[in-house]
Amino acid sequence: MSSTVGQVIKCRAAVAWEAGKPLVIEEVEVAPPQANEVRVKILFTSLCHTDVYFWEAKGQTPLFPRIFGHEAGGIVESVGEGVTDLKPGDHVLPVFTGECKECRHCKSEESNMCDLLRINTDRGVMLSDGKTRFSKNGQPIYHFVGTSTFSEYTVVHVGCLAKINPAAPLDKVCVLSCGISTGLGATLNVAKPKKGQSVAVFGLGAVGLAAAEGARIAGASRIIGVDLNSSRFEEAKKFGVTEFVNPKDHDKPVHQVLAEMTDGGVDRAVECTGSIQAMISAFECVHDGWGVAVLVGVPNKDDSFKTHPINLLNERTLKGTFFGNYKPRTDIPDVVEKYMNKELELDKFITHAITFSEINKAFEYMLHGKSIRCIIRMDA
Amino acid sequence: MSSTVGQVIKCRAAVAWEAGKPLVIEEVEVAPPQANEVRVKILFTSLCHTDVYFWEAKGQTPLFPRIFGHEAGGIVESVGEGVTDLKPGDHVLPVFTGECKECRHCKSEESNMCDLLRINTDRGVMLSDGKTRFSKNGQPIYHFVGTSTFSEYTVVHVGCLAKINPAAPLDKVCVLSCGISTGLGATLNVAKPKKGQSVAVFGLGAVGLAAAEGARIAGASRIIGVDLNSSRFEEAKKFGVTEFVNPKDHDKPVHQVLAEMTDGGVDRAVECTGSIQAMISAFECVHDGWGVAVLVGVPNKDDSFKTHPINLLNERTLKGTFFGNYKPRTDIPDVVEKYMNKELELDKFITHAITFSEINKAFEYMLHGKSIRCIIRMDA
Repeated sequence: MSSTVGQVIKCRAAVAWEAGKPLVIEEVEVAPPQANEVRVKILFTSLCHTDVYFWEAKGQTPLFPRIFGHEAGGIVESVGEGVTDLKPGDHVLPVFTGECKECRHCKSEESNMCDLLRINTDRGVMLSDGKTRFSKNGQPIYHFVGTSTFSEYTVVHVGCLAKINPAAPLDKVCVLSCGISTGLGATLNVAKPKKGQSVAVFGLGAVGLAAAEGARIAGASRIIGVDLNSSRFEEAKKFGVTEFVNPKDHDKPVHQVLAEMTDGGVDRAVECTGSIQAMISAFECVHDGWGVAVLVGVPNKDDSFKTHPINLLNERTLKGTFFGNYKPRTDIPDVVEKYMNKELELDKFITHAITFSEINKAFEYMLHGKSIRCIIRMDA
Repeated sequence: MSSTVGQVIKCRAAVAWEAGKPLVIEEVEVAPPQANEVRVKILFTSLCHTDVYFWEAKGQTPLFPRIFGHEAGGIVESVGEGVTDLKPGDHVLPVFTGECKECRHCKSEESNMCDLLRINTDRGVMLSDGKTRFSKNGQPIYHFVGTSTFSEYTVVHVGCLAKINPAAPLDKVCVLSCGISTGLGATLNVAKPKKGQSVAVFGLGAVGLAAAEGARIAGASRIIGVDLNSSRFEEAKKFGVTEFVNPKDHDKPVHQVLAEMTDGGVDRAVECTGSIQAMISAFECVHDGWGVAVLVGVPNKDDSFKTHPINLLNERTLKGTFFGNYKPRTDIPDVVEKYMNKELELDKFITHAITFSEINKAFEYMLHGKSIRCIIRMDA
């Protein structure tokens, strides 16, 4: 690999030339990493809803051409000036948000919202010089959330790379880059159910199923899945979901249904849909005295969370989380270890596997709700 | 004292015959305690806003004649059947909410909202038989929140009595029955500022000043008082308040003013006014990543708490508290000890002292905003 150090690498990337149009596999040029940057050879990547959301570019400022992708596993090819934590050959997971280890957030035990490297979906360039590292025939191609993993090689800020156990299979642990860690951490780090408590999970997509997996690991006695699509229940059982509620099946509000099922309310609720009504229900379904509701799903710009303040004064807690409160560099290697020691199950999240040249299929699977996670193998 | 055991006691009580009319000192009859009840000789009581609120009876169902009062210190005169935790001579603080030690809330480490003895402002009778223990010439006189301390003797459920150190001066620690513990616990038990953090307190009445006292004890570096009445700042300095913001002095929203003063937001905020706008501001003024806002003030029935959910997803926490999350029997004796070992200062809360026959003066002081706490000495 050493022959490419300091050189521009030509490789394949799946370029989004226009909003909503199929990606095109192109030969692109990937510049060497600059100060505090790392060039990574991506071996496996997967598709997350956030990629699809910004690819569709409905309502946001479109930024094209762009290379999407932010769940992945790879190997360090070379490092830029000042990078001491990583060296060529290290196994890494790129993360869409970062950890500079210097700012108040990184120094706080309570936050993972790094001032320097917090997710920025509008930025399509590297922080240091405001330029892209990708180009084709001299035309710059924009980055996406600092990761752009739909490329055989990518350049990432060192603060956005988790160095993991090299024995961990990258085709499995790559899903920990984003959605699965988000749901898992929402339960384990934020909702923190005690052994034997009940947990409601709103939304049984990948993030919600990961929240259920967290509840299973925490030893929850009941994991109640709430989803508008009843066909998801069967699959959800694999993730520890013990009961299922479809709000459409009931005449009364879902928080009442849950309160009746649980003698006053669930102990914890995790909201993974982004629907404002689900957020309010998730809060109102928790038990007074000790109930904790955690919001994970990303709301619409104009949404307003509303509740009667007495719901709070009755000692309920309302929290939100970002990336499951995990600090990417500090905590994600430990999540990988949870998988290695069989505490955390990941294989069940992986429903499809395709080659890089078939990448548009992953979009179809997701848009049709067929996949939880589709792994894309880069070298094929 | 033993001569009165099992007998009806005739004593003085301040009876509210009608909403908003001065209390009248009457000779009343106090029946002996029934099962799980305790008759207490009240030595000192103080007046809290909640007494005034239900005495004015604006908007609630009026229940008269009634004996108000719920902040007090006294000595057990006799106990009813089944009472083993208390005996005649024990020093106690009656509390408006209780701890049965049997229900799920009492058994939970996280809640103090006892299913059996949780505050009930509509009930004017004892739980066991639905009757009052007070009467005058055969006419029943209603209880208030299970305490009715504006009487030389009162009957209280054993679950609503904190047994305290007999060396503690009752004319001081009586204020721990309600408001002061509420504010103190909101900070110490719920907001939990770390040493060196900043704390904003909305509302500098007795509860807010107690919240500030909690922040002082926790070692907060900055305690920012927020109140619409600037004249309160001078007094508030005694309670550790270091800076003052009057929202009326600013053209921008108060949460912005606070964010600018604190490089992005305060670490903790405690809302002690009950104004819905203050609640929203208290939440929106805390720092992302780690900020915690705690609601203490009692809102109006029709209030709606509104915020953009992104404020939560940015890892702010919103909580409410009831009686500062203290369990009355388990925790209040320890709060008394905090006063005894000089960790907690109480004397500064006591601005007035009067005799029982002057009790209506305490209402005037409070209605005119002159007092923090006015101690009423029962034997004079």
